[in-house]
Order: sequence, then C-alpha cells, then structure tokens
Amino acid sequence: MATRVIGASGLARDLGHWRSTDPASTDTAVRKTSRPAYLALAEGIRLLIHDGRAPLGVALPSERDLAATLGVSRTTVTSTYSLLREHGYLITRQGSRSTVALPPAIAHDGRRVARGILATMSTGDRPAVDMTYAAMTAPPEMEDAYAVALQGIPSYLGTHGMDPVGIGPLREALARRYTERGLPTTADQILVTLGAQHGLRLLVNVLAAPTSRVLIDHPTYPNAIEAIRDVGARPIPVPLRLEAPHAAWDLDGIRSAARQTAAALAYLVPDHNNPTGFLMDEAARAELAAIARETRMTLIIDESMVDLSLTDSAQPTPVAAFARGSEVITIGSASKSFWGGLRVGWIRTSESLITRLLTSRATVDMGTPVMDQLAAVHLLENSEPILRHRRALLRNQREVLLAAMADELPGWQVLPGVGGMSVWAQLPAPVASALAATAPNHGVLLAAGPRFGVQGAFERFLRLPYTTSEPDLRRAVTAIATAYASLGPQAGDALQPLTCY
Amino acid sequence: MATRVIGASGLARDLGHWRSTDPASTDTAVRKTSRPAYLALAEGIRLLIHDGRAPLGVALPSERDLAATLGVSRTTVTSTYSLLREHGYLITRQGSRSTVALPPAIAHDGRRVARGILATMSTGDRPAVDMTYAAMTAPPEMEDAYAVALQGIPSYLGTHGMDPVGIGPLREALARRYTERGLPTTADQILVTLGAQHGLRLLVNVLAAPTSRVLIDHPTYPNAIEAIRDVGARPIPVPLRLEAPHAAWDLDGIRSAARQTAAALAYLVPDHNNPTGFLMDEAARAELAAIARETRMTLIIDESMVDLSLTDSAQPTPVAAFARGSEVITIGSASKSFWGGLRVGWIRTSESLITRLLTSRATVDMGTPVMDQLAAVHLLENSEPILRHRRALLRNQREVLLAAMADELPGWQVLPGVGGMSVWAQLPAPVASALAATAPNHGVLLAAGPRFGVQGAFERFLRLPYTTSEPDLRRAVTAIATAYASLGPQAGDALQPLTCY
Repeated sequence: MATRVIGASGLARDLGHWRSTDPASTDTAVRKTSRPAYLALAEGIRLLIHDGRAPLGVALPSERDLAATLGVSRTTVTSTYSLLREHGYLITRQGSRSTVALPPAIAHDGRRVARGILATMSTGDRPAVDMTYAAMTAPPEMEDAYAVALQGIPSYLGTHGMDPVGIGPLREALARRYTERGLPTTADQILVTLGAQHGLRLLVNVLAAPTSRVLIDHPTYPNAIEAIRDVGARPIPVPLRLEAPHAAWDLDGIRSAARQTAAALAYLVPDHNNPTGFLMDEAARAELAAIARETRMTLIIDESMVDLSLTDSAQPTPVAAFARGSEVITIGSASKSFWGGLRVGWIRTSESLITRLLTSRATVDMGTPVMDQLAAVHLLENSEPILRHRRALLRNQREVLLAAMADELPGWQVLPGVGGMSVWAQLPAPVASALAATAPNHGVLLAAGPRFGVQGAFERFLRLPYTTSEPDLRRAVTAIATAYASLGPQAGDALQPLTCY
Repeated sequence: MATRVIGASGLARDLGHWRSTDPASTDTAVRKTSRPAYLALAEGIRLLIHDGRAPLGVALPSERDLAATLGVSRTTVTSTYSLLREHGYLITRQGSRSTVALPPAIAHDGRRVARGILATMSTGDRPAVDMTYAAMTAPPEMEDAYAVALQGIPSYLGTHGMDPVGIGPLREALARRYTERGLPTTADQILVTLGAQHGLRLLVNVLAAPTSRVLIDHPTYPNAIEAIRDVGARPIPVPLRLEAPHAAWDLDGIRSAARQTAAALAYLVPDHNNPTGFLMDEAARAELAAIARETRMTLIIDESMVDLSLTDSAQPTPVAAFARGSEVITIGSASKSFWGGLRVGWIRTSESLITRLLTSRATVDMGTPVMDQLAAVHLLENSEPILRHRRALLRNQREVLLAAMADELPGWQVLPGVGGMSVWAQLPAPVASALAATAPNHGVLLAAGPRFGVQGAFERFLRLPYTTSEPDLRRAVTAIATAYASLGPQAGDALQPLTCY
C-alpha cells in the first residue's frame, strides 16, 4: 500500500561507484577495495541512509531488480540486505518489502536532529555542535513580544480562535512593510501562514500538478525540494554560478530551462539564497520578472532571509515589484528574522489566489496561532534594533567561522554571500556524505551538500551555518577537521566497517 | 476492485416502512400513499441515497434477492430499478450490477470558504449567527495558561525553537493522560502537531497512496474527507445508523466494507462523532479493533471531541487499548477541549511511525509553536474544572437549541448524541443545500448536510452546533425557521417527485 519505494535505477545512480565505497576511502578514484561486493554494496547503501538519501521508512528495490540494475548476482544483493538487516539498517515485516531504518543506537543520535528542541547528543561529556540548522536563538526582545501578545490576547478569546487567514493587525503590518520596501500592498493581499515552508507547501498544493516542472536554484533549501516532490511535481535545477567574480544567478539558464521544460512554477531565493547567501541584483530581478511573463511561469520568491543583510548596502526592491500582473508570489517568515519557535510566516499574492489557498489550507491545518501572530506584530513594529543586533552577531560569527576554516581546513574554499545564515563550503574531494556520516563521532552534526540539490549533486559541498556561538563555531571547525582527516587514506576507523559491529 | 454490495436484508432494514415513504411525509406512520409499490420503493431508495445510507458507487442487491426479502414481486423491483436508472440514481454498466449514483444537477454543491476570525457576515445591522463552526470561545482560564507559558518560555529562547516533535513536558503530560485512561503510553509515542486536522493530514501523507481506500464514518468531519481526497485517496463511506434506539456504528458494515474494498486505512470518530455526537460503546470498540486486525486495516481514531461528554457515564476505554500491535493510531487536539486559537494537537502511535512522520512533516511545516505548547501543558494539568464548566455550558446550550427547534421547526427530527458540540438534524424534506444557500439572507450561516458526506448525500440533514450563546442559538433557530419557510409551502417539492422528472 503506502510504502514509498526507491527505484533500482535511482538507487544505482545515488550509489555511484559503490564498489570502491569504503569507510577508509570514499574518494572513489583512489583505492580499490578487495572486500566482497556484498560488503561494498552494504557500505554504499549505509552511507545513503546516513545522509538521508535513502530516507527512513522507504522500501529498497526488490533484490531481483537491484541485482539486474547493478549487474551483480542476486546472491550478492541478498547478502547485502541480510547484512543491513542484521545491523539494523533494514526492517522487514512479514509479507512486506524491506524498509530503511536506523539501528536503535544511531537512530537515537540521528533523530535527535529532528527530536525535542532541548535534547542534545553527547560525545563523551560534551554535546555535539549542531551545524545542520541555519537558525539562531531568540533575541532578548522575544520575551517582551510575548508579554505584549498576552496583553492583546483578550480581544480574541471571545472568538472561536481558528484563523486560517491571519489577524488584521498582522496583515496590515506586513502590508505596510512591503509598501515601504517599494511594493504597494494591501492587507487583503496577505495570507498569514505557519512559516515560509508552510507557505510554500500550500502554494505547491494548489499550483503544482503531479506533472508540473518547478525550477529551483541549485543549490537550494532542502525542504523546498522535498515539498515539490511530495506533491508529485518535478524540481528542475538551475545551477547558481558559484565562482568569483561572477557568482550569481544564471538568467539565461533560467530562461532556457523555463522554455525547455515549460515549467509552471519557479521557487527561487534571491534574497540571501539558502545555502550560499547570494543576493540577486536589481537588474537581474527586472529580467527575472520579464522571463516569468514571457514564459508564463509563476515565480515563488522566498524572502525568509531578506532581513539578514551583512553589508551596509541598500536592499534591492522586492522581485514582485517588477511584476505587471500576479506572476510573482512572495513568501516570508518571522523564523529567521526573529525566532524559529514563533511559527509565523506569510504569503503575499492576489486576493483570488488567497481564496483558493484558504480552501486548500482547510485540508492541512486550521490556522495560525493567535498568540504568535500578536507577538509577530510587535516584533515587526520594533524590528530595527533587533535586526541591527542580529546582523552584527551574524557578521562576527561568520568572521570567526571563516577564520577557523582558514586555519584548520586548508584546501577548502568558501565564497561567502552578502547575507543569510550560512556559507557554502567546497571540499577538496567529493566526500561530503561520508564526512556527514562520520562527523557525529567527532562532535559535530553536518548537513552534506547533496541535501541542497537533486540527482546526487554537491558531494563536494557542505552548508556551514554561522548561527551558533563563537566557541561552538570554533569547536565545530576543529571537529570537522578531525572528521575530515579521519577519512584520509590511513584513518578509516571513524565509521566502523559493518563487519566490525 | 470488486464493487461493494449492499445486502438485501440491510437495505430492507434501512428502508423501514417504505410503502409509506413520500417526499411530503417522512413521518412514516401517518400517511398512506396510493402510489404503486414500485414507485414507493424507488422513493424509499432515493431517500436512502440522499441521506448517505446507500453510498454512491455501491451496488444494490440483485432484483431477485430484494424481491424475496421485501416480499414483493420481481417485476416490482425491476420497475423500481428502471425508474431509478432513468432518473440518474442508478448506473448500470454492461455485465455489472447497478450501482448507486446521483443525477448531475444534484451532485453539485458549492462550498463556502472560511475567512478571518473576526470577519462576520452581516444582514442589516446585526451580524449573522455563524452556525458553520462547532467551536467555542476560550474558557476564562486561557489567559492564565498563556501567562504561565510566558513564565516558561525563557528556557526555550536559547534554542533555535523549531520543534517538529514537541516539547518533553507536553509529550509527558499527554502520555500520562492516555495511561490514566487505560492506554499505557510513553512520551516517545507522542508527536505534537498543530491540531487534529494537521495530524490527520500528516498521517494520510505518509500512510495513504493515491489508490488507497480510506473508510470513513458517514456522516463525518468535512475537512477529513477533503484531506483524504487531497492526497488522491478515496473515502469509502460506512453509514452510521441514525435511528433510535439503535443509532450507532454498523460494525458489520465496517467489516464488509473493509473486506470488499481492501481499505488500507479507516478514519473514525467514535468519541462523540462529529456531527452526530454518537459514542461507540466498549464492546463495539473491541470488535472494531478485531476487524482492523483481521483485515490488516490501520485505524485512525480522532479523539478531538473525547473530553466533551454531556452525560455522567464513565468514558469508554480508548479504541487503541484494544489493539494488539500498532494497528490503531489516535489523534487528539486541544482545540475543542480548550480553544481553537491554540494550535496544538497530537498523534499517539509507534515510535517507528513517528520517525516516518517527522521526515514527511519537514515538507509541510517546521513544528509546533513553543508558547502554545507550554500553554497546553498547563491546561492539560488543570483541565478538570475547565472541562466541567465547558460541559455544563454545552449541556445548557444544547437544551436551548433543542427547545427552540421543537418550538420553531416542527417536523424536524433530532437524535442528539451523548457529547460533542453539535446535533445532526433531519429536515422534513431534502432541501439542506437550498436552505444553507438562502440562510445568510435571514441572518444565519449554515453548514448543509452534504458537506459531511460524499457525493451529495445528506440533503435532508444539517449540522447544528450548540457552541454559541443561548440568545444567539435562539436567534439562529428563528432565522432558520424563516429561511425554511421562505423556501415556500412546497419546500418538500424542492426534490421533485420521481414521476414528475
């Protein structure tokens, strides 16, 4: 019934040169392993599981399909699956396919990433530094914002409280903010959501059909890729140029991808792209809007990071200001500007699309919490000092991160953007997944490059956020350096071979 | 897939005194009609179709079986089926049985969109009474709960705040509550959501495939039907028995529907069903769990209304307590027990399913707001006086509603349940959609019966919530009476007799 299945060909593609996959050598060209094929295959699949490329709960291909696709014997695949099962990476229920799992000991660590927010994972006595999130702790003003919300809540307690569209004061504050930024907006054009991701999901639920193509920045925000896929649509990557001095959006690439795929939608993050921090300039924004018109493609512009400029230059005008009709939709969020524990985001679009979104939203949730909305009103109206402080903090932390990397990670390259919360680091070798898999053993949790792309791209990249404290950033870089060294030709013990379990 | 079949004896039972069934007189004992038997039988079956008792797409019994069971001639049944076919109530495909349908004109039903919480629709100077929501205003203790949350928030402000699984104290409080109700539960079995609807959506996203069948109570909660459809799955209605003294779940119907459709899932509301308020007894719960095991069907039990018993009887044990494995999933919510402006719900299930849900949730939203979770902890730990007061309020308001209906809506029938927030009212004629369409002109907003069913059923029903104030309830009933009268002395003729088509 409902179990997702990884296709044999997809798995084969993700596995790449699996015969040489070995905890001691993931630099595929370098070493040949003399280990039996079933063991090498098991190692390869295990790395995909650790990196989230073979998601938990999905079923692996049938033994016969995988054997045929990889050109190995059925016995090899049977042995591989047995070994994975034995070590807790596969669960088989009677009469069902084998589904991906994590061994309980590791599941505890790995799930920590997604588990309770006060939980930590320890290596020895110290908790690991979590570099998988680009998110800061709350500003000191957060408590005040909730106190103000508490004063405002009584006017709403006499209603049933379910609020799919958003309270008037918040929609008005957001409309004013857009208008001040050069994009005239009324409160009726605002739908309050539970965050930018929730806004994106509502939009793709309504605007994307199972056959739709959706252009994306490449790299981009991982959960956006998953949301697009989850509705059955297909993300079409348009690579960002990553090399100085022309690091930026490839407008010709966007135009031709839009034409060639007849994409209905594009999801782009031009305001401090996640993960690179790049900012699209004003001329490119005008051209992008023109491309959308020409190709009849709707743009979803994610402005989650817009407030986090780390330069003193003026911010460019919102992309939607270059639209002539309703072809540009803007989504925003209070999570990055203020705090992730506050679940408030928004969509700015036409009133008619808001009506459609509301109908669809009723199948997903009953609205945005009133307390959080009231707190968001206060934060938006008093944002200047909060954001000034946050930007200064991020600037300092980025310097600390870059300095530590220059010291401890020679050969790694970084081209920092001009804002946002992370740098996109290029490794000397395509070992990002292996590094992310072994990093927890060294005291740091990492998000490997392939999570930010499609089709197995970005094995030479990591997103490194500078959102934690300076000591933690230094500790993280040291841990990364140790983990990275452990991947070297002589230091293969970091990820224990399956046979040693 | 085999077509579901209604048994001849079940149909005969549901038809009751079909010989006297007539659109102008549903008080079955009163009038005798001189119309021929085949016409009376067709009218009876047509009413069952409109009321959702003969779900669309299921097959009627063979002519021979039905004739034998009802003690009429085979010719009578043949004529009845021909007449129904002629009027669009039966579809016969070559070589197949006749299956229930609706004529195209009736199948259409416009849906009203939910707007902002402070929005009202006015008739003249007074706002209309909104009877489309079964939701109360906040209890006086709500403000205290947020004040306590404000005291607790500082411990979380030092984290990034994004919390897809839920804070420990809330998961522990919920686990204790289940354990006290006879269902031993640990905090690891709880996933905190943004409400019951959000929980259901996460579950169908993960558990339902586009081809899945999902059994539902009929009538049931409209947004649940839409969530099931939105993932491409198909709701399979299993009619609730609506007549005293046996009004309840039809376990045989559930069993045979599960077998005949090989349903992967069932979404049921046995704890004060929405809209009827019915409560499933303990024996039926045990049988339901056994059916789930036998048919390998996963049950999603919605307990949103469980706290709102309006009798003094002890609450039955949760359905999940009768499960042997993980075949019963429970979803709950703070929205009905406390306040809809607080967006907190939960899923109780196995740890392994929670892991899968977390992966999927990242495509939908980034977690539940911390403030609301802290408030929910306080409310759960101090729920007794709040719930006692809310139940008393609901009991009084229900009495007011029923008394006003008895006065002003003669001929309407209500079989109140034992809890929840609404009654399911049966109109003398199948005009619910027309009534809901004209009601705003008379000062009341109504949710017509067809919203609570599939494929146009329930034209003879309205859900009437008793969640507003006593004066508003009285005003609403007066407005309904005026609106109903405005449909004309031939309100009963809104559904034209079959012969006049």
